[in-house]
Amino acid sequence: MVVKGTILSGMRPTGRLHLGHQSVLDNWVGLQDEYNCFFMVADWHALTTGWEESKEIGQNTLEMVADWLATGLDPNKSAIFRQSRILQHAELHLMFSMVTPLSWLERVPTYKDQIQKLGEIGKDINTYGFLGYPLLQAADILLYKANAVPVGEDQLPHIELTREVARRFNHLFKPVFPEPQGIVKKEVAVLPGIDGAKMSKSYHNYISIGADPEEIKKNVNLMITDPARIRKTDPGNPEVCVVHKFHRIYNPDLLESIEEACRGGRIGCVACKKQLAGSLEQHSAGVRERRQEILSKPGYIEEVLRDGEERARVVAGKTMEEVREAIFGGQA
Amino acid sequence: MVVKGTILSGMRPTGRLHLGHQSVLDNWVGLQDEYNCFFMVADWHALTTGWEESKEIGQNTLEMVADWLATGLDPNKSAIFRQSRILQHAELHLMFSMVTPLSWLERVPTYKDQIQKLGEIGKDINTYGFLGYPLLQAADILLYKANAVPVGEDQLPHIELTREVARRFNHLFKPVFPEPQGIVKKEVAVLPGIDGAKMSKSYHNYISIGADPEEIKKNVNLMITDPARIRKTDPGNPEVCVVHKFHRIYNPDLLESIEEACRGGRIGCVACKKQLAGSLEQHSAGVRERRQEILSKPGYIEEVLRDGEERARVVAGKTMEEVREAIFGGQA
Repeated sequence: MVVKGTILSGMRPTGRLHLGHQSVLDNWVGLQDEYNCFFMVADWHALTTGWEESKEIGQNTLEMVADWLATGLDPNKSAIFRQSRILQHAELHLMFSMVTPLSWLERVPTYKDQIQKLGEIGKDINTYGFLGYPLLQAADILLYKANAVPVGEDQLPHIELTREVARRFNHLFKPVFPEPQGIVKKEVAVLPGIDGAKMSKSYHNYISIGADPEEIKKNVNLMITDPARIRKTDPGNPEVCVVHKFHRIYNPDLLESIEEACRGGRIGCVACKKQLAGSLEQHSAGVRERRQEILSKPGYIEEVLRDGEERARVVAGKTMEEVREAIFGGQA
Repeated sequence: MVVKGTILSGMRPTGRLHLGHQSVLDNWVGLQDEYNCFFMVADWHALTTGWEESKEIGQNTLEMVADWLATGLDPNKSAIFRQSRILQHAELHLMFSMVTPLSWLERVPTYKDQIQKLGEIGKDINTYGFLGYPLLQAADILLYKANAVPVGEDQLPHIELTREVARRFNHLFKPVFPEPQGIVKKEVAVLPGIDGAKMSKSYHNYISIGADPEEIKKNVNLMITDPARIRKTDPGNPEVCVVHKFHRIYNPDLLESIEEACRGGRIGCVACKKQLAGSLEQHSAGVRERRQEILSKPGYIEEVLRDGEERARVVAGKTMEEVREAIFGGQA
């Protein structure tokens, strides 16, 4: 029998996801057969930088999990759960805090970056919790003894910290934890927002996963094309065109012919956008349908989460028994 | 009906207590009728500065709780429990961490003091957990909505932090917490160790609570008396005599006559010590007996703790429901 590896991954509950999240989700869906997967709604993490909007976390969780399920996360294969419902995350975080030098957290590259970045928009996140959030992440991962964590390149220092924390615990007390590896998926092509910047909720430049035809049409029409092209017979430059970047992902087979037609001034931006909108709509329809079906069953998402939480809690409970035994010995 | 106030207090599990702890314990015992009392074995706190000795925490807990019970803490009146068994302490600590500015913790007076003090004896406690321990204390107190906390003068800044954290939470989310008051008991007289320094386990200058006659005799014999007094007919100076400081507490009625006899050279140090040993033994006998009785019932202390933990968990659970509602709103 081959023992499956274990994966922990999560997202902060920011509400409906957008096409910029699609590649992460597709990756998750693909991992479900190979690994024991734990997919976490990181609602405590959402408080580190966004406690002012804490009241929206509940609704945002439902919207996001609807997207997860509609895209293909399968609650029969994977445990889908809310971090805040498994108190052991807080317990393990506290245990780790006792043996984690302050300097390890202070030197995490995102730490000072983020404080400055958010400071510039008038947000003060210089809290004890924000300093500790990579340690909470380490607890999230190690609580399930995950040995693999799908992450973006910028998250690799957090995985490195997790490995250091695991090593230190194992060395000081007893070997309880694996040293997880970050799985960085090479992004074939990054999908920009409709204005060419990074797709992001806060930039209002996104198209939702499972968007309806109206949202798709409206946003595709707003996409920025080659600004030097005035008439449709002018030769266009696909390199600077957002529509083209979407075609690259959603119409890879037609890409060459679209590109040629654009450069040759044989297809106008309006027609090119129409074609993209059609492809996006085709792509979106299935997810939208499943999304609606999921949301039409009252209490279904809550049920999925509770079930996932029960399963997560069993694994978390077992790990914490080992942790307590390692720290306190047999007596406690 | 007068609603009783609520008290939370605790000690780190360092094993058997000594006479230097007596006044704190006597104070606790007296509070039990006036207040709803929660007495906590602070085993997580013990890890902040002493994770190297974590394996001793279990046994130390039993020894300490035996002393608590022998001295008069009554499990029928008060909830006696281990902090580490109520995961909500970790949960509330984490919630508070999200809204507690780092600077509040950095400026706690004991913080840099202790790092330096322990650094001098080669102990590095510069961890994330040590920085956060006054916040864990705030969580300990507020989890039970305690409005009064018996503390030593040096702990008042921690109570002030607790009040600030409560105020901030109440202001940002919803008024959930009281602002607890520190109850500082004026110490009538401080009992020194047998060498005249502060009584402390690490100085090996202590007499245990419930000590047996041998321990008492041995330690009273070692007590430092007036070094200028050579012969027993020399006039003695009680001001500089440790034995006299003990008489002050354990023989208040005889104090004047002992003092006069000493100054007049009419009682020798040997006789004076014998009298003290007798009084200590008399004082100790009841506690020792109750202690032995408690320890002779297998599983009794564990039972007391589990019962206290059940009661503590109910109160903690209720508070956390309110906290979650305040943060996340009705949905979460």
